[in-house]
Amino acid sequence: MSQKSLSTGALVLGGDLGGTSTRILVADTSGRVAGRGLAGGGNPTAHPDSAAGALAAALADALAGLDPAAVGTAVIGAAGGGALRHPEVRARFDAVWSAAGLRCPPSYVPDLLVAFTSGTPAPDGTVLIAGTGAAAGDIRDHTLTRTADAHGWLLGDDGSGFWLGREAVRATLRAIDAGEPLGPLGEAVVRTVLGAPPDAGNGRPESDDTRGALIGTIMGRPPVRLAELARLVSDAYDAGDPAAYLIAERAAKLLSGTVGRVRPPGTSGPLVLAGSVAGEASPVGRILRQIFSHSDADVLSARDGLGGATWLALRALDPALATPEAHSRLVS
Amino acid sequence: MSQKSLSTGALVLGGDLGGTSTRILVADTSGRVAGRGLAGGGNPTAHPDSAAGALAAALADALAGLDPAAVGTAVIGAAGGGALRHPEVRARFDAVWSAAGLRCPPSYVPDLLVAFTSGTPAPDGTVLIAGTGAAAGDIRDHTLTRTADAHGWLLGDDGSGFWLGREAVRATLRAIDAGEPLGPLGEAVVRTVLGAPPDAGNGRPESDDTRGALIGTIMGRPPVRLAELARLVSDAYDAGDPAAYLIAERAAKLLSGTVGRVRPPGTSGPLVLAGSVAGEASPVGRILRQIFSHSDADVLSARDGLGGATWLALRALDPALATPEAHSRLVS
Repeated sequence: MSQKSLSTGALVLGGDLGGTSTRILVADTSGRVAGRGLAGGGNPTAHPDSAAGALAAALADALAGLDPAAVGTAVIGAAGGGALRHPEVRARFDAVWSAAGLRCPPSYVPDLLVAFTSGTPAPDGTVLIAGTGAAAGDIRDHTLTRTADAHGWLLGDDGSGFWLGREAVRATLRAIDAGEPLGPLGEAVVRTVLGAPPDAGNGRPESDDTRGALIGTIMGRPPVRLAELARLVSDAYDAGDPAAYLIAERAAKLLSGTVGRVRPPGTSGPLVLAGSVAGEASPVGRILRQIFSHSDADVLSARDGLGGATWLALRALDPALATPEAHSRLVS
Repeated sequence: MSQKSLSTGALVLGGDLGGTSTRILVADTSGRVAGRGLAGGGNPTAHPDSAAGALAAALADALAGLDPAAVGTAVIGAAGGGALRHPEVRARFDAVWSAAGLRCPPSYVPDLLVAFTSGTPAPDGTVLIAGTGAAAGDIRDHTLTRTADAHGWLLGDDGSGFWLGREAVRATLRAIDAGEPLGPLGEAVVRTVLGAPPDAGNGRPESDDTRGALIGTIMGRPPVRLAELARLVSDAYDAGDPAAYLIAERAAKLLSGTVGRVRPPGTSGPLVLAGSVAGEASPVGRILRQIFSHSDADVLSARDGLGGATWLALRALDPALATPEAHSRLVS
């Protein structure tokens, strides 16, 4: 492809450094896509060694056939972002940036801001991300001003996918202790973790093979893998299992509490729900929408965060360009 | 010391394979101590490579100057005990046992039974151990018949020392999120984890240095080290910190719930409370005693588990020897 020659500020760039992928979007000033790039995991906390390389690959992809010097502003969402404050990590990212021929400095912003902006062009409001982890943020004038949770699986992430998976196992262990029938959720947990048909047990310590195997298997793997079991709660909920219902209800209650900590009564602006657990396809997401239907908040679903970041880049170039139309185009 | 020649059954042996020590006690048939042995950590789950060696050292110590063939019965308490069901581990323990000249087979029993027996010679009742972990058991006829919790730090141990330490950090992170003053507990957590004076923060993400440092430091260490922070809850409780009060109350409630799952109303026999968190010196232990003062259970404090194991060995030799007097002698 031949390189188009454009003046600086003719293009903007948005990015998303995720745990499983690095995505880059280049758009023109009306929010029309000019280039896209995709590479492996780009979160520098999760992938300290390969994240900068993934960014380089995604940038090369997105800028192919374009003049990198034409990019006037760049906004990149990064989960946590703590690692980017580390000088060595940041230096590696900056080197990749210069090597790509980009002249504008990149603005790394919290994933909470990007998720909020994917759901609305409004300047103020609240955002909840509930995926593997959980975090809420207060947004004022397109800036993250306050957060709740985002404390990680060991200390927080209440109501997250990790939490749901752990509670599924906890409920199963309690049923085994009590010698109660496992039900759809417990049977699915045993089958998924042990790959074997469940043995209900009867609470006697001599027959604790299933209990011991569950605990031993899970303790022998990285704890975050518990998040893989979150979908079992959704499935069992849809199958009408009361145990799954109780867990989903508690998750939604915890997540609404996390929202409440950054959204006191009277807070203006919409509430954007992001992440698989808070999505409309998830029982927890549906319960959350029920809970907030009784509040004064306008509840919106997050769309593509990469589009949100690119729209923020457009806004940084010139607020007049950051129209609702450009927003719709970018997040769809 | 010259070896005394005694007939088989003139002595009994009790043991305790703990996470930090291996203890052996040899007693005569009236429960008088004939020998004691002490060595390093003997829990085969926690110390798979060195546990058998520790048992060998403690046995040699305890049997010095005694005829090992005179030992008629042996009862050894082991936490979990799951590892001893592993043929290879068990073979190593059996080899150590034979090499010590012991002729009677060792009976490995759950630490819940040993803890219960340290508190009472009664055949039936309930026991709660709350230390780093948490577990409750139902004892019928000197046998553990049912357990609750003991699921480990990742999946259970509700109300344990691990749980207390984690809740102390969680409360601190929430106060930082909210921009609230930390109070005695939060200040102690920050000082203990970071070794630095606390910076209260104000919930703004730009000032999340203390929050990020707390999470990063704790996530960089083995999770069980959170149990080290349990004492901060006790200290702050005694200093009148409401945050510590709420955590201790919730721990006691969770632990009494764990007891309730193995002790339905109408269950006979005393309740023995064991472990540092359930002890009389701990606020949680005091709240637990208040809670159970409203029940029909006679609440007792565990004493030396090694004595409990030795008394069970005496009982295995001849139930008539397992007198309350021998019990008092052995557990004191």
